[in-house]
Amino acid sequence: MHVIEIIEKKRDRNQLSKQEINFIVNGVVDGSMPDYQTAAFLMATCINGMNSEEISWLTDAMLYSGEVIVHQGASTPFIDKHSTGGVGDKISIPLAPAMAACGLKVPMIAGRGLGHTGGTLDKLEAIPGFRCGLSIREYQEQVERIGCVIMGQTKDIAPADKKLYALRDVTGTVPSIPLVSSSIMSKKLAEGINGLVLDVKFGQGAFMKELCDARALATTMVAIGSHLNKQVTAKLTNMDQPLGRMVGNGLEIIESIDILCGQGPQDSKELTIDLGAEMLLLAKKAKNFDDARRLVIDALSSGQAFSKFLEMVETQGGDVRVVHEPKLLLSASQKLVVPSPATGFISGFDCHAIGFVAGILGGGRSKLSDKIDHGVGIEMHVKIGDGIECGQPLCTIFANRQGVDEAKQRLQQAITISNEPCNRPQLIADRITNNN
Amino acid sequence: MHVIEIIEKKRDRNQLSKQEINFIVNGVVDGSMPDYQTAAFLMATCINGMNSEEISWLTDAMLYSGEVIVHQGASTPFIDKHSTGGVGDKISIPLAPAMAACGLKVPMIAGRGLGHTGGTLDKLEAIPGFRCGLSIREYQEQVERIGCVIMGQTKDIAPADKKLYALRDVTGTVPSIPLVSSSIMSKKLAEGINGLVLDVKFGQGAFMKELCDARALATTMVAIGSHLNKQVTAKLTNMDQPLGRMVGNGLEIIESIDILCGQGPQDSKELTIDLGAEMLLLAKKAKNFDDARRLVIDALSSGQAFSKFLEMVETQGGDVRVVHEPKLLLSASQKLVVPSPATGFISGFDCHAIGFVAGILGGGRSKLSDKIDHGVGIEMHVKIGDGIECGQPLCTIFANRQGVDEAKQRLQQAITISNEPCNRPQLIADRITNNN
Repeated sequence: MHVIEIIEKKRDRNQLSKQEINFIVNGVVDGSMPDYQTAAFLMATCINGMNSEEISWLTDAMLYSGEVIVHQGASTPFIDKHSTGGVGDKISIPLAPAMAACGLKVPMIAGRGLGHTGGTLDKLEAIPGFRCGLSIREYQEQVERIGCVIMGQTKDIAPADKKLYALRDVTGTVPSIPLVSSSIMSKKLAEGINGLVLDVKFGQGAFMKELCDARALATTMVAIGSHLNKQVTAKLTNMDQPLGRMVGNGLEIIESIDILCGQGPQDSKELTIDLGAEMLLLAKKAKNFDDARRLVIDALSSGQAFSKFLEMVETQGGDVRVVHEPKLLLSASQKLVVPSPATGFISGFDCHAIGFVAGILGGGRSKLSDKIDHGVGIEMHVKIGDGIECGQPLCTIFANRQGVDEAKQRLQQAITISNEPCNRPQLIADRITNNN
Repeated sequence: MHVIEIIEKKRDRNQLSKQEINFIVNGVVDGSMPDYQTAAFLMATCINGMNSEEISWLTDAMLYSGEVIVHQGASTPFIDKHSTGGVGDKISIPLAPAMAACGLKVPMIAGRGLGHTGGTLDKLEAIPGFRCGLSIREYQEQVERIGCVIMGQTKDIAPADKKLYALRDVTGTVPSIPLVSSSIMSKKLAEGINGLVLDVKFGQGAFMKELCDARALATTMVAIGSHLNKQVTAKLTNMDQPLGRMVGNGLEIIESIDILCGQGPQDSKELTIDLGAEMLLLAKKAKNFDDARRLVIDALSSGQAFSKFLEMVETQGGDVRVVHEPKLLLSASQKLVVPSPATGFISGFDCHAIGFVAGILGGGRSKLSDKIDHGVGIEMHVKIGDGIECGQPLCTIFANRQGVDEAKQRLQQAITISNEPCNRPQLIADRITNNN
């Protein structure tokens, strides 16, 4: 087999064989394929696409490029959730302990924030002492004992994806359904799970702007699940505005704890319940969706989910005082209410701009080595469809460094106010599953 | 300007600006653009193409990435010829001195063979002592004094092309009209010529198998000429069989000398006359094509072209005894006639296989550092359309090393014999020019 012939095949829109895809992925991992050939292959794939067989083979090759975790006690279903990401999306944090409270095992491997969206690990690290860098052994023991764990990717998980991901970022080959879906699925399936719930975002603040593109991505990932014999349910959810009230690492922990106590904003709470119910259905822990929802709501309102979170934080070395008293996370030295510059109706958000503001306040990264200020962020006071009067609060800025004035100005520009009433977008637009 | 945005623009089939193309080419030359980004750009261009403006800008940027030669005495037209290459194509060697004999200046920069086609420089180096590595100064002085020179590319000529060409070879991005045409034209126009005749091959043994693809390439290169204010004429010529009788470095010098003496095989002689006539028309040295042809035929039959060749060989350090006595080039220790395995009509050649045989005999390279045996090769005794009887000679192998048996077998397979009479292909199929 010759690498140039394989690249040429994809360039000419021909289907690759399983062997050819393995050859490429092996070459990427063992370093025998130079970056320029990988880049040419990625661009050919990005432009010409792959069919569902090729995507499954690619996922499989990436998955088995590294360690695939095997859990003891396989009778309990291991189920995880993954979101394609959006501003204010902290759902993993209340969801994992809530599901553990419902009897699932949630062996979640999560990521860090880069660019305009935050990362689950960065949020958890707002809790002093919280360790995301567990060994595989610690990770397995924790999920076995308490039912949930959230840790960072190790170098042994899907190393092919790590290389391809880094190269895609600098070669203009990020927005490709075969590459995105195989990247997500290879990392998630390496957790040794039985089922996966996907939160595929669409809208202004999502990677996929249009519902139809998000549906294509979701359908592809569900098909990968079918090929690789895993149960997968995808929900298509709206990302035209930040999810919940809080944007920023510590602030999102506060909102997560609210949800874990059966409170929290309507949308982020609802999405936690909905995705949790889907996880329970995959695990056959409920007869139907309504029953499943009720189990999640019970776990949240009974305090069991909160207890699991406490247990998880303690096990991972975090300071539990913060969980009992979330106000401790409000460490920002400055607090500025941003008033509405006009009277009217909230009609839209520039989520990228809001994520960018969180970044300039010090809460995000432009490169992976940047340090994060966990105390800063934005609390949103409005949602699309709300009426507002001039001077009423749009949001509150929590800041430590300079940049508050710029943040205020950018936030006022990032929130569109219209004279006409606007419809509230529906949070959950569609569901795609291979689970019967 | 950001390189990833430019790559994304081409990925998404948008037109690049002159500034963006310059940015890419500058990045390639100064090394600030890593190979993986260049590879992604090349693949996006290979798949999505470029329009004629982009191709001209790309050619211009590549041309001015290095030295563009300015000749003294610009009143004499500097005209060159370039062929897209084929097995047995030695036309440059008789053509350059023939044109010098007709009063043109031919400042030819030629290449080496790689893969199945031979290189003009390798053929000339069959003449003991012949130097292809001249300085720009020697090159200019020689063309000024005797009217023709054939030398190798220097590192100062179109360095962007050198980098892109090497990368295309290993990233599956060779067959792309924008990339092929800008590569050829930037190198040729760097010679400081006023006009260029292109021999664009089509058929079984050519880079472009179909006439329509060759026409598209020719049209693109003529359009580049128009944009950059150069006169360009392209001839589309058939490459379904080896050109002339001889394939192999020294053997092709023998045939070139035959042509320079007004003899030689019908097809290679005819193509020399035709392309020469086109060069004279570009230089306005003849009123019409028939007059131009007559001037070339006169130069060949009068011995003037031969004298120029002698002068060129002498000036470049070559042993002129070989030119006077070409049999000295028949240095191969073995000579084997390959008989026809059947009676019928010659209906086709596998030119790649014939080039490959020349290679296994030691006359070609699979990598640029391979040494060449200038004495080996194949003399063809048949052309498409010829009748042949079983046992009659198809060709003669000239060999030194082992491999003669394999060569014989492969050559018998490379020549197709049919029961039905076959038409002889027309050598010159079309002409495209921007010269009025």
